[in-house]
This record gives sequence, structure tokens and C-alpha cells, in this order.
Amino acid sequence: MEALLRQSRGMCPFLHKTSPATLRSLSTSTNAIQANMSNLQVTAGQCPVMGKAMAVQSTRLNTLLSGAFGGSRAYSTRTTRAPRAYLHTTRAEKAQAVDSSPLRRDDVRYAPALHQQQQAQKQSSKEMHGAPPAPPNTARFDYDAFYQTELDKKHKDKSYRYFNNINRLAKEFPRAHKDTPEDKVTVWCSNDYLGMGRNPQVLKKMHETLDMYGAGAGGTRNISGHNQHAMGLEATIAKLHAKEAALVFSSCYVANDATLATLGSKFPDCVILSDSSNHASMIQGIRHSGAKKMVFKHNDMVDLEQKLASLPAETPKIIAFESVYSMCGSIGPIEQICDLADKYGAITFLDEVHAVGMYGPNGAGVAEHLDYDAYVNGGQPKGTIQDRVDIITGTLGKAYGCVGGYIAGSSKLVDTIRSLAPGFIFTTSLPPATMSGAQAAIEYQMAYKGDRRLQQLHTRAAKDALAAKDIPVIPNPSHIIPVLVGDAEVAKKASDLLLEDHGIYVQAINYPTVPVGQERLRITPTPGHVREYRDHLVESLDKVWKQLGIKRTSDWAAQGGFLGVGQETTGNEPLWTDEQLGLSEVNAELNKVGNDAVNVLESVLEAERKEVAQAVASA
Amino acid sequence: MEALLRQSRGMCPFLHKTSPATLRSLSTSTNAIQANMSNLQVTAGQCPVMGKAMAVQSTRLNTLLSGAFGGSRAYSTRTTRAPRAYLHTTRAEKAQAVDSSPLRRDDVRYAPALHQQQQAQKQSSKEMHGAPPAPPNTARFDYDAFYQTELDKKHKDKSYRYFNNINRLAKEFPRAHKDTPEDKVTVWCSNDYLGMGRNPQVLKKMHETLDMYGAGAGGTRNISGHNQHAMGLEATIAKLHAKEAALVFSSCYVANDATLATLGSKFPDCVILSDSSNHASMIQGIRHSGAKKMVFKHNDMVDLEQKLASLPAETPKIIAFESVYSMCGSIGPIEQICDLADKYGAITFLDEVHAVGMYGPNGAGVAEHLDYDAYVNGGQPKGTIQDRVDIITGTLGKAYGCVGGYIAGSSKLVDTIRSLAPGFIFTTSLPPATMSGAQAAIEYQMAYKGDRRLQQLHTRAAKDALAAKDIPVIPNPSHIIPVLVGDAEVAKKASDLLLEDHGIYVQAINYPTVPVGQERLRITPTPGHVREYRDHLVESLDKVWKQLGIKRTSDWAAQGGFLGVGQETTGNEPLWTDEQLGLSEVNAELNKVGNDAVNVLESVLEAERKEVAQAVASA
Repeated sequence: MEALLRQSRGMCPFLHKTSPATLRSLSTSTNAIQANMSNLQVTAGQCPVMGKAMAVQSTRLNTLLSGAFGGSRAYSTRTTRAPRAYLHTTRAEKAQAVDSSPLRRDDVRYAPALHQQQQAQKQSSKEMHGAPPAPPNTARFDYDAFYQTELDKKHKDKSYRYFNNINRLAKEFPRAHKDTPEDKVTVWCSNDYLGMGRNPQVLKKMHETLDMYGAGAGGTRNISGHNQHAMGLEATIAKLHAKEAALVFSSCYVANDATLATLGSKFPDCVILSDSSNHASMIQGIRHSGAKKMVFKHNDMVDLEQKLASLPAETPKIIAFESVYSMCGSIGPIEQICDLADKYGAITFLDEVHAVGMYGPNGAGVAEHLDYDAYVNGGQPKGTIQDRVDIITGTLGKAYGCVGGYIAGSSKLVDTIRSLAPGFIFTTSLPPATMSGAQAAIEYQMAYKGDRRLQQLHTRAAKDALAAKDIPVIPNPSHIIPVLVGDAEVAKKASDLLLEDHGIYVQAINYPTVPVGQERLRITPTPGHVREYRDHLVESLDKVWKQLGIKRTSDWAAQGGFLGVGQETTGNEPLWTDEQLGLSEVNAELNKVGNDAVNVLESVLEAERKEVAQAVASA
Repeated sequence: MEALLRQSRGMCPFLHKTSPATLRSLSTSTNAIQANMSNLQVTAGQCPVMGKAMAVQSTRLNTLLSGAFGGSRAYSTRTTRAPRAYLHTTRAEKAQAVDSSPLRRDDVRYAPALHQQQQAQKQSSKEMHGAPPAPPNTARFDYDAFYQTELDKKHKDKSYRYFNNINRLAKEFPRAHKDTPEDKVTVWCSNDYLGMGRNPQVLKKMHETLDMYGAGAGGTRNISGHNQHAMGLEATIAKLHAKEAALVFSSCYVANDATLATLGSKFPDCVILSDSSNHASMIQGIRHSGAKKMVFKHNDMVDLEQKLASLPAETPKIIAFESVYSMCGSIGPIEQICDLADKYGAITFLDEVHAVGMYGPNGAGVAEHLDYDAYVNGGQPKGTIQDRVDIITGTLGKAYGCVGGYIAGSSKLVDTIRSLAPGFIFTTSLPPATMSGAQAAIEYQMAYKGDRRLQQLHTRAAKDALAAKDIPVIPNPSHIIPVLVGDAEVAKKASDLLLEDHGIYVQAINYPTVPVGQERLRITPTPGHVREYRDHLVESLDKVWKQLGIKRTSDWAAQGGFLGVGQETTGNEPLWTDEQLGLSEVNAELNKVGNDAVNVLESVLEAERKEVAQAVASA
């Protein structure tokens, strides 16, 4: 042993110059990355001579290291097996209960057909290739330590997510129960913006479809998963957006990812211009496309135009953006982007995920809303903003209350994605009941504007009430109410206090969903959030703001404002105008009752809702 | 004009050497790729001098080209607008109906708040940056022509997919109707392998959940979409696979894609070793990870080991493979892959999509089935093959009859994916009713083996009957019956004939799902495919084979065999043994009735099924 060590020292510059004390210390200290290895073992593994020697002479090396330096840690690898269960599953031998006596797996016969096959394969491979290589005995990657490190990072930067058990009750919308049916809260952050998840027509359609056509589609669209529900839903979506065709995906995450990845990879030398606030699904789709990506500043048309102008005219370009940006409620300048797309030969990819069902006379989204009067009587007017957008994507899982996503556009575009996108082709279709329910939801919202008008009214009222309490709402023209906190830990604390002490569920939105320092509570009123819920929300937020000492609007103003809070802003007037909301219709009523104007409109709309619901039910 | 042309000819080698006749021909012929351009325009756009000149002098150029060479095609770009609808949506002005008089968009006021905002932005950008660039007037990319070209390619290579409208009837499983309720067919290619899509317990649970908790989840898992249904389902999946934890995704396509993309991109210098027959979802996940990919030959352990041995020991490695390969029915050598993973410090990623619900005493898949007796009485035995697999992925949309996918593994792994995978984080949760239905399906199949045993029996019977008719089935040990055709057009023709003339729906499987020349009909029996359906199937296939002159097994054998058809093969004995199928239990009955053995077992199992169903219903 000593002779071997001497010999090694003669050959190895590292062993030669390192003192026995250091070597002993290295051999007894555990490596930080690979916990089952000593630092000496890791060092040895990196040596071109020793690494190879270790691979073929692990036993000898172990003896050398532990013998020479007194290291007590036996060399261990993941191939060291725990005692094995003794298993019989052959026909010939009787099945036995689990036994803990250690046994090498090779002695065990299990499923005989496969076993024989695999033994035959082993045998023939030995004959062809000789003995398989000996296992390498150098350090292996420590997967568990890696997972732990990643999780530790999330805890450390406060981005680790704790999920709340929230069971939304269809019959008590917008109420939900937590762990037990008795423990109820009001949900103020759902994306079921219009309460369509509990809409009687939608549920009725789903029950009927379940009974008639079962739980699942049973296949991909190409293999037994194509049906009248898919066809009907896609025809309805195409009609909704006044496009030639539509295609349904598992989700709009998948729709965005698959469509951008497919177009971006197929168009030769494609460049995708992406708004800096775009959703993760678009970011992933662009990444997956391998196309060149240019990120333009959020809603900044000068920046977008400069980037477009820098590209060759003949280069295919996709401008990817959203109508309603869900975390701040800002709205994309759709028409200006269409203008730039025309000017520079790009196509437009518009994500209307947070807008479908919510804007426009048919609920087709912001693009439709911008030409409100052109669409108010149905039809498919040409030259409108919606008509100019090349690809519209939307979801069936937010305002439409179900699940799934889609694209709408020209027949050729849709057929191309249908034919080429693996994320569409190789996955099971949505269940028939999901598709029929979503179709019913779209049709209901095309026929009836009351839900989204009431939602807008509640949004206005909540924003006004919060402003009156100096609670800092990031101003925007949409239905989103982002309440600025500005700190991850405080935002979570505020959310927890609201849930535990006030029976209000509003999730904290932290990094990476929003940038660090912009943490917020994101509040989403619905038609069901009537005055009593709103009053309770505002009062509770006021208490929590006091309790945690969170900055008010006036505090932000004193330091010059932030994200529009405590600042003069323009362009944040609601997208839904007074006239579109039908406020003029109830003017007489409003004048009579004065201060209680909100409740009057609510009752007017509620009456209207019931009327339409009855008409739809009896149709 | 003539002077300019002369000048151009003096400067330009192309114009100088090209005859006026050729120039005229170029100017009047349309470009194949960009249909709105003449070939001369495209050529000019490629010239470094002319291209720039065209960008700033389009009018002059148009005159030159059309004037000089008699071309009548006006230079057109996508910025040429159709007459615009005249739209008012302001509060001040009364809304008007759509009017077709042409009007420049800039003159129109639409949603006033946004309009003002955008006008202000335009104004300020002009002040800051001066006038915006002039539009480039060189050739633009022709998107529509590109789509058409892609679709033409699909038509040409016969890979264009025509979807069949198949509406599977819950109460008449495995029957479905086509376009009209009266036009019925038998479905022989659904992945609802066990008919769980019409299982009364599953449907009951879904109806109850729909009524109680509504249609959709209403949010992502982090924001109001986490609930008892997700928790219950994930706990059930973890129990099913005897793993610490599980995580549910929109689909198993997303589960595979998101998990492989996340791990492959996060592990430093990760290498993913992928079976050559892996599903598209894994291929995409590996591509999206950006990790190094090494493809090993299908089920070839020698090739896999050589690739593993070529990599440094400390490199993180993922071996990604399947248990049942759905298009050929082959089964992955799970234990040998676990052995190699241990030997080379890799982790195993096993897709059990086509096996969950179908194999093992609890329906956990092939990995469980290989240790059948260890799992037959429940519990979580250690050291088994399933226990050794690091990551198991599965679907809720095939044998479990619903929709959705999942991963199961260690708590740390699952928490890491939960925390890092955008495809999990940024998407709406599955609907509560889908999750509760899927949980009911898993629990039902854990409690009752009859469906999968009957399914296996029908598979055996169908394979035997097809063999008796010399119909070429690709041999395998699983429940898949791939019937070899070997030509895309003929396979589609056979599928169409079966549907139209025989009331049988079996989709043709063509490239790219299988390699060119390996086209097939993929038949999947279920517990509902009783003898009368099977007899009709075999008879119909025989007729179609005759009608189209498709090769029989004996024909393939005469030319040496192909894919195991007409060849001596080993290892294709069914994974489910006679004993596991309970054939010994009904031996006495079988002996009594002789030839009608199959029906006896079917009735025994059906009686058992009803018993269990009643027990579950009354529990």
C-alpha cells in the first residue's frame, strides 16, 4: 500500500505537492455538490489518469484512499442496492407474498415472456459486442441535491408558491369553501370573470353531453377524437371573431405555444417581435420556434417601428401581443400595431385571452370593441380592426368559464397549424361536454351583454371605492384591479390576512409573474360581486393596509408616484363607455334615487339577465 | 422614361445583358412564391442598388416597370386598404350603422379613451423621434402562399389529415354516430381502452361535481384554481404509482413536454437519451429543453449502454422511454433501463400513457405489472421496478376515459417541476369535474381488474381471429393490434371502405405518425367489443383486404417478412399471463362449453363487473 502511494506520488504532481494532512482532510470532508463523495474522490475523478483508473479499478482505489488516509467513508454509488423484494410472477411458479430476503434481480423471474425476450437480447448482445463496459465509478450528478437547491432558491427569493385550497361553489358564486364545506370565503381573484362556470345554460348543456357522449373524447382529433362538438365549437369561435376558421387546443397556453413555435420555425428566417409584457405562453412559443426574437417595450409603437424598420422587407415577421395585459390591466394599441404590420409586411398575433367574453357587442374582445357599432348588429364587417388582425387567440377557461384555448384566422392559416403543430396533433381532444359547454357559453355571451356590462360597472365601483380609501390601484382602462403592494413578503402577508381574518381570497402576485418591487394583489370583480361584497372588500383592505403599514396612493404620490399610482395619467378612461354600458338608459332611475345608483343598475341588469336566461332556456 | 431605362442599363449588369423580350416576360409573369409580385419585381428586390431604390421610390419604380415593359400589374402591397367602414363609438356623436363610404382610419374616432391615448402617443413620438420611417416597398413575404405550399406538400405526400366526425355514444359503447344520430358505426380505434368514458361511477361523480363546483376551475393552480379535486386526484395518482407525489397537467403531452424541457434546461449540461420510437410530446420536450439529445435504437439496450458509457459520469442524464409504444404495441425493457440508469448515474423518465389503467393489479401500468404479485395486495413495496423508476408520466384521457396528464415521482422532483415549469404554472387548472371524474376512474380501476382482463381477452381473441384469416398483425405483447398495410393511400382507402361499407371506424395511421411504408390500421379492442363486433370486424377486414388486394401475412412471409409480420419472432407472448387473466378460474366452464370459451369468460367477468359497480355505487 505504502509502495503504491509512493509510486503515485512520484507520478502525480498533485499528490507530490500536497501534504498528507491536506490529503487526509480532503478525504474526510464531504463534497458540497455531490454529497456522497469526499472532496478527494471528486478531485481524483477530475484527473485524466486517476479518473480512468477509478473507472476500472474502483475496489483497489477505495482501498487505497481509505487505507492510506484513514477515510472511513466507503465509496458508494447509486448502483448499491437496497435488499430486494423476492418476486415471482411466472406461470410455472406459484405467486408468493413479498419477502425481504436480499436477492439479486438477475436471479428472479418475473413476467416470463418479457423476461425471456430481454434475456435473449442480453445474450445476443454479449455475443455481438462482448462484455458490456464496467460502470464508471467517478462522481455522479446528485439529482436530489439539485432539486433541493432549486427549491431553496425559490424560498429564498420569496417566489415559492403556496397553493390555497379554494373550492368555488356554483350555487353561491362568488363564494367558495376552503378545506371544509363550512369554512367559506369570497373569491376576488378568479378569472371566471362573468361567472359562466355556474351559468345554468352551460351546466345544462354539459350534463346532457356527459350523459349522451360520456366523459372523455377518447382520442386525438385525428384518431376518434373529432366530433360534432369540436366542429360546432370551432364554427362558433370563427363566427365570434368573424374569421374564416378556428382551431381548439387543450388550453390557450398550448394554442399560443404551438402556433408561435410552428409558424416561427416554419417561416424561413422568421423574426418574432414580442411585447415585453407578453404572457409566458407566448414567450415559450417564441423560444420553442427557434426564430429570432425582438422584444419591444410594452405598448411602445416607436420602439416597435424602429425594430420593424431595421429588418429586411422580405423577412417574414410576426408581431405578438395582447389586448388586455392581465397583471396590470393595460390595453395593447391594436390598430396601430395593425398599421405597422401592414407597413412592414408583418402578420399580427393577438392574444385576447383576458378580453374574450368581456369586450365588444358579441364578447369577441377588445379588437371587436374598438369597432363596437360595426359589430352591434352581428355580421362580419370588413376593414375593421378585428378583421385586420391575422391571428386571434383566446381561452375558454376564463370569461367562458370552462377550459381550453383556440386560434382564429384564415382557413389556410388554421389548416396549416392543424396540419403541422405537434401540440395540436398529438394530444387527446377536449371532452365533448367541455366543448359543448364552452360553445353554449360563447353563444350565451353573444346573445346577452348584461354580464359583461355589470362586470364593468362593478369594476368601476370597486375602483372608485378603493380610490376613496387611498388604496393604491394601478390605473388602467380594463376590468383588472391591480392593487400595488411593492414587496413579495408583505403581499403574501396581506393575502394571508385577508383570507384568514376577513374571509376574502385574493392571491398575492409575486415575481416572476410581475417584476420584483411591483408585487400586487390582483382583484377581479364579477357580475356576482354585488355591493355587500365590495363594501366588505374595501373595508378589509383598508384594515390590512393599516395593520401592515402598506403604502397608500398618497404615499406613492409623495415619492413621485410609481406605475401610474400617485401620478397623473392619461388614457385610462374605461374602454366600456357610459353609453355602451347603457347608463343613459337608467338615467331617470339614477336621478330618482341619487346615491344608490349602482344598485339600481344592478337590479335592472339582473332583471335583464333573468329574462335572457329564460328565453335561452325555453329556446 | 427612356432616358432612365438607358441610364439603368448602363449601370446594371443584369439589365445590360438581358433582352427586352426577357424583361417583358419577367415583368408579366407572376412569382411562384409571392403571388402578388411579378418575377421582375422579385428580381429587382434582390438587387442591392435596386432594392433600396424601390424602398424609397416605389411610385417612380412602378411607373418605370409598367411603362417600360408594358406590365399591367400595379405594384401592390398589403398596405393597400379596402374601403373602410365608417364607425362612430364616441359618447358625443350618435352611433351610426355601418357605411361603406371609403374613409381614412385616422379621421375616425372610435373608443375615445384609447383613441386619445394613442393619438397622444403618436404625437409625443413624433416630437421625440421626428417623422417615422417611410414604408419599405420591396417584396414582402407572402404568408398565404407559404401556407398553401405547406398544405400542398401534405396533400402530395398523402400525410394531409381528414378528420372523421365520430360521436361516441355513452349508452351504446363502443358504438358512435357520424354526422346524424341515425348513422351509426362501431369504433375500433379509440384510446378509451376500458370504456371508462361511459362508466356510471365516473359520470355520477362528474355530474355531482358540475352541480356543486361548476364548469371550470376559474384560474391557474396558484390563482384560485387549486382545490380539493386537484389535491385528491394527485394524492390518488401518487398512491397508484406508489410514489411520494404527483402533479396534474392539462394533458400528458404537456406533462412530458414541460417536465423534460424543465429538467433538461435546468440540469447543467444535461444529456437526454431518447428511445427512437418515443412519442412526439417527449421529442418536443427534449427539443425545448435545449439539452443534448442522444437517440438510441428502439428498445436496444446495447446501443443505450454504449451511449451512456460515452458520457462523463458526472454529467446529468435522463433516459426517456415508454412502457407501451402505442403504434406498434412493443414494450420497453424497463428493468434493464433502470439497471443501466443505476450503472451510469442517470435518471429514468417512463411514459406509461398507453399502459396506465391497463396493466398491473392496480392498473398502474407495465412497471407495476412486472412485479404483479408484490402489488396485488396493495401497499408500496420497495425495490420493485416501479419503485426504481424516477419519473412516471401518465394520462387521464385514455384508459381512464377523461382528459389530462400527470407526472409521479419523489416529492422534491414534483415540487421542482411544480415551481419551475411554465407549462404547469401559467395555465388554467383542469375543471373540478374532470379531476373528480378522473380520480373516480383511477379508484375504480384500482378496486376492479375485470375491465382490463376482459380487454386483454378480447385482444387475444381478435389477434387469433385475424391470424386465422391471414390478416397481417404486427406481433407484440400488448393490447394494441397494428394491422400492416404498408401504403398511405391504400391505408386511407381501407379505412374509408370500412367506415362507409361496413360501419366500422378504424383510422389509418400514416406518416409522420409511423414511417413511410409502415402505414397501418391500429385496432384497439375494449371490454365492450364482444364477439359479435369482433366477428364483424374480422369478416369486414377480410373483404377489404380482398377488395384492395392488400398483402396478407403469407404474402409478407413470402418476401421474408416485415416488422415481425410473416417472420419468426420471440418475446411477443402477452404480458398478461393466463393466470393473471384468471383463465384457470373458469377452466371448468371452458371445458364444458368447448368452443364458446370466450363468451363464458366474458359473462363471468361481466357479472363480476356489475357486482363491483354495485358495491362502489352503494359505498
